[in-house]
Amino acid sequence: MSEKKKKPQIKKTGKTKKPVGAVKSAKKSVPKRTYKPTVTANTKGRKTNRREKKAPPKPPVKVAFLGGLNEIGKNLTVFECENDIVIVDCGMAFPDGDMLGVDMVIPDYTYLEQNRDKIRGVVITHGHEDHIGGIPYLLAKVNVPIYGTPLTIGLIENKLREHSLSAPPELIKKNAGEHIKLGCFDIELIHVNHSIPDAVAVAMHTPAGIIIHTGDFKIDYTPIEGAMTDLNRFAALGDEGVLALFSESTNAERPGYTPTEQKVTDSFDQLFSKARRKRIIIATFASNISRIQQIINCAQKFGRKVAFSGRSMINYMKVAQELGYVKVPDNIIIDIDQLKEYPPEKIVLATTGSQGEPMSALSRMAYSDHRKVEVGAGDFIIISAKPIPGNERTVGNVVDELLKRGCEVVYESMYEVHVSGHACQEELKLIYSLVKPKYFVPIHGEQKMLQKHRALAMSMGMDGKNIYIGDIGKAVEISEDGIKELDPVTAGKVFVDGLGVGDVGSIVLRDRKHLGQDGLIIIVASLDVYDGHVISGPDIVSRGFVYVRESGDLMDDIRTLALDILEDCSHRNIHEWGVIKNRVKDDVAKLIVKSTGRSPMILPILMEV
Amino acid sequence: MSEKKKKPQIKKTGKTKKPVGAVKSAKKSVPKRTYKPTVTANTKGRKTNRREKKAPPKPPVKVAFLGGLNEIGKNLTVFECENDIVIVDCGMAFPDGDMLGVDMVIPDYTYLEQNRDKIRGVVITHGHEDHIGGIPYLLAKVNVPIYGTPLTIGLIENKLREHSLSAPPELIKKNAGEHIKLGCFDIELIHVNHSIPDAVAVAMHTPAGIIIHTGDFKIDYTPIEGAMTDLNRFAALGDEGVLALFSESTNAERPGYTPTEQKVTDSFDQLFSKARRKRIIIATFASNISRIQQIINCAQKFGRKVAFSGRSMINYMKVAQELGYVKVPDNIIIDIDQLKEYPPEKIVLATTGSQGEPMSALSRMAYSDHRKVEVGAGDFIIISAKPIPGNERTVGNVVDELLKRGCEVVYESMYEVHVSGHACQEELKLIYSLVKPKYFVPIHGEQKMLQKHRALAMSMGMDGKNIYIGDIGKAVEISEDGIKELDPVTAGKVFVDGLGVGDVGSIVLRDRKHLGQDGLIIIVASLDVYDGHVISGPDIVSRGFVYVRESGDLMDDIRTLALDILEDCSHRNIHEWGVIKNRVKDDVAKLIVKSTGRSPMILPILMEV
Repeated sequence: MSEKKKKPQIKKTGKTKKPVGAVKSAKKSVPKRTYKPTVTANTKGRKTNRREKKAPPKPPVKVAFLGGLNEIGKNLTVFECENDIVIVDCGMAFPDGDMLGVDMVIPDYTYLEQNRDKIRGVVITHGHEDHIGGIPYLLAKVNVPIYGTPLTIGLIENKLREHSLSAPPELIKKNAGEHIKLGCFDIELIHVNHSIPDAVAVAMHTPAGIIIHTGDFKIDYTPIEGAMTDLNRFAALGDEGVLALFSESTNAERPGYTPTEQKVTDSFDQLFSKARRKRIIIATFASNISRIQQIINCAQKFGRKVAFSGRSMINYMKVAQELGYVKVPDNIIIDIDQLKEYPPEKIVLATTGSQGEPMSALSRMAYSDHRKVEVGAGDFIIISAKPIPGNERTVGNVVDELLKRGCEVVYESMYEVHVSGHACQEELKLIYSLVKPKYFVPIHGEQKMLQKHRALAMSMGMDGKNIYIGDIGKAVEISEDGIKELDPVTAGKVFVDGLGVGDVGSIVLRDRKHLGQDGLIIIVASLDVYDGHVISGPDIVSRGFVYVRESGDLMDDIRTLALDILEDCSHRNIHEWGVIKNRVKDDVAKLIVKSTGRSPMILPILMEV
Repeated sequence: MSEKKKKPQIKKTGKTKKPVGAVKSAKKSVPKRTYKPTVTANTKGRKTNRREKKAPPKPPVKVAFLGGLNEIGKNLTVFECENDIVIVDCGMAFPDGDMLGVDMVIPDYTYLEQNRDKIRGVVITHGHEDHIGGIPYLLAKVNVPIYGTPLTIGLIENKLREHSLSAPPELIKKNAGEHIKLGCFDIELIHVNHSIPDAVAVAMHTPAGIIIHTGDFKIDYTPIEGAMTDLNRFAALGDEGVLALFSESTNAERPGYTPTEQKVTDSFDQLFSKARRKRIIIATFASNISRIQQIINCAQKFGRKVAFSGRSMINYMKVAQELGYVKVPDNIIIDIDQLKEYPPEKIVLATTGSQGEPMSALSRMAYSDHRKVEVGAGDFIIISAKPIPGNERTVGNVVDELLKRGCEVVYESMYEVHVSGHACQEELKLIYSLVKPKYFVPIHGEQKMLQKHRALAMSMGMDGKNIYIGDIGKAVEISEDGIKELDPVTAGKVFVDGLGVGDVGSIVLRDRKHLGQDGLIIIVASLDVYDGHVISGPDIVSRGFVYVRESGDLMDDIRTLALDILEDCSHRNIHEWGVIKNRVKDDVAKLIVKSTGRSPMILPILMEV
């Protein structure tokens, strides 16, 4: 699949580890705010000689949105300039409640398949599923190199082990501050704070100008690990002149600032004291590695051991520990099987299930279904997360079950045991103010968040016509002259169900919904191949409709009705099976709706004998 | 069904309209806080001569919980003393997400059927579905008189019109302040504020002492219509000595006070000004009659007409208007068909759908599916409600759709366009402090709310052992000597699906879930009645599994496998159909999981020919 890739070029640029300082000084020669993306200005001091030969007329950048707009998740934005495509992020989304049986949702990659030869690489901003979850499925279609910071690439490697790909993936680690040369794009990674370490924003130095894509971010002046968001770099780019800012909108509706992670540390300290002789169980997102670092720190301070429960948490911990993203003191981590060797007051159990997911470790504990942990009055449980919209009820149910078992439960707003990973309004305004973009594109969010984010930019003086709110499948062209909408590109939601990708669509979902709501009635009969009279049956089979044993009369009525119709059709020489089946279906449906008020799926099956 | 009822007695006591003052003065002779429920003390000044003849030894009150604990909705509490049962409320609950296809949930009435001869009446605190929704189903089992305030009874009458009952229901209107004599119970209705007018708390004067059941309430010092919660009466009863307080816990987790409805009026005023030349559409709960009164008031002030959309809202308005619970100025209400006769700035459209319900009027508008209203940039939409936990996502989706169409949308916390109908912590404490009960039973709420409510009572000095947190099916005995748990009573969740009541249970739901998640594969074959060889088929029918047209190979593989198994069984003289079906099921399941990673329901159907 990858035989047509321009691999030598990519390899070469991939290895160009230019020091950040050099680039910065090179950029300073560009005049502020009047920056014109002429080819000569742009290539000054950079190795983009290839384009000088072509000498194209100041090309614009085309942007196509394949995901992350009017939805939460499956972030994927396509940036295209001259003959080069760079993809930023490649995520998945969790299915909505009406996508029955669907495991995950990924973008439609048709547009990328159509333009496979142009794709120079995928740049990943951080290792969350909504940014990396689609990678195995994209690689199955087009084998392109993936760039990201070490932790991000480590998590992608881990994920790809579960998938068998025809070609080995090309995964390239780059640190924040480094540059990646992808065709005419010079990609710079900028360190940002988020709820997972090693997250970056992306500054794309393109022939058309600088475009910044924030990825997911927040501004934490006192993060648990690593540096704070590199505000200075955003400021320097702003001074240089930024053509367009693509900024995430997850918390655009929330006023103020997201509090620092240190608040959580303070709460943990307080709660660890309060827990006294009880065992502490903390549920949080498996990927929130700095939260887990806080748990470890606090456990050490209070002389407790830490065990982990939940497959995804164990996986994340493994990668983070191998790559040095968690600092683990000696002998503090124990296996879950060792829990009984320690008294409750010497234990912290970190677990998945903070969203009340039915099969998660915390849910199993709550419903007495966990093989290794039984909870009760001796447990002090902290849910260090906020329910994602739609999960409020499942989380509430888990809390209730834990309370009924006598556990002490700290959840939601009772203490500051969770802070968001996303920037609130004041932080969004800060980045916008530093960057001072000519055009503004709010991304990552539902319509209400995107519109709120637009309103924020307008409140700071931006002209509404320089702001573009996109949608999946929309495409725009951005240049100094303006931002204009192009013809849409192929885009949509592709459902992954088990091993199947895209083989579940609207008809299958409609049938699942019908079956799930009302159940089904099967009417099966063998008919004589010559005259169509009933040789055997009709038999009635029902599932998900009523207790058959208590509805014998109704089943008899259905059987009698079906038999009458079949015999009537035979006598009247009606042999078109479509006609016969429709009569059975319609008349049985009428009988059932009259006697039960319901509309199960009715499946007449006729066999010729 | 009602031939054994002690109707003459009930009729007589039902007519005993004793002035409230008389009762009050009679009660004042009872010493404060040391109140002992001896028979002589208790019957002093009251017409409970029947019991004097029996002279029983200070009977305790038994309380059985059939609903409203560890859940939101289907409130039903049974109070039993001597040979008399009084039921407080008879509600329904909305199904959880995992109760597929279920229309509503009602309590199991077995305990009431078993004790039908003791039941003297059902007292309804107010006209919300979670307090009246079960009445038609209870009356179908036991025909008992229903008592409530005029609006409550009006709404019940309206509801019962949709149900055909074998006996005409006995519905008795009583105003707040009035008493109802039901066997040894003297029931007093106390006016409270809630999100529907004419709501009451219930004080039960029993041989064991006074028991107060708050129903749903809040304290609004400046309500839109009617008086504020009758705090003085609660205080007087507290002075007299209250044995037990049953208090609602819906908002027990929320600190502070629920703001007055006047806050909403202020917001409406502000927003009506802001809407200028736009059409205003306000979505709210159909039953929130005082909210609709505010909409009408505001419309009049701003010279707009009011139209209604949504069947339930039109129904509630009809009853409320007939009974005089909304004050409607002349010529302000127009029919929805008249909308086009007025310019947008002269219109307010009040609509259902504030919870994002898929079939509601507002959802239809959002998805361009409303027959009479098309929304767009000329609309100013206010969602005057808060999403009920679990509905956040559907509400969010509707808001997004409206925004995409260019509507201006005011939702949730943007303005104070909604206040709760339930008491927050400070209000709960106030009622508790006025009443000073000996025993405290938090009701109406999930476990976390009940426990929070208990913690509130304990923070005011109550001993934890005088607080009882119950559950569905639990029963207690309350007397001066203590509150003790009795053997449980039959209780549970009964599912209403279409016309069927209780014919959908766990097996049907399990099948619906399986069908809904994974779809189904039917394998049907006709076998020779003598040697079991395959005469016709096997045919494969699938629904909700994969696109069959694109999965022809898999279907062929399934058919071949099934045929092999059937022929093999025939050759090996295996004729037990259970055995054959299981082999087909297991082997086909293995094939499918291997090739698709999924587990559809597999239904082998064999016919003998």
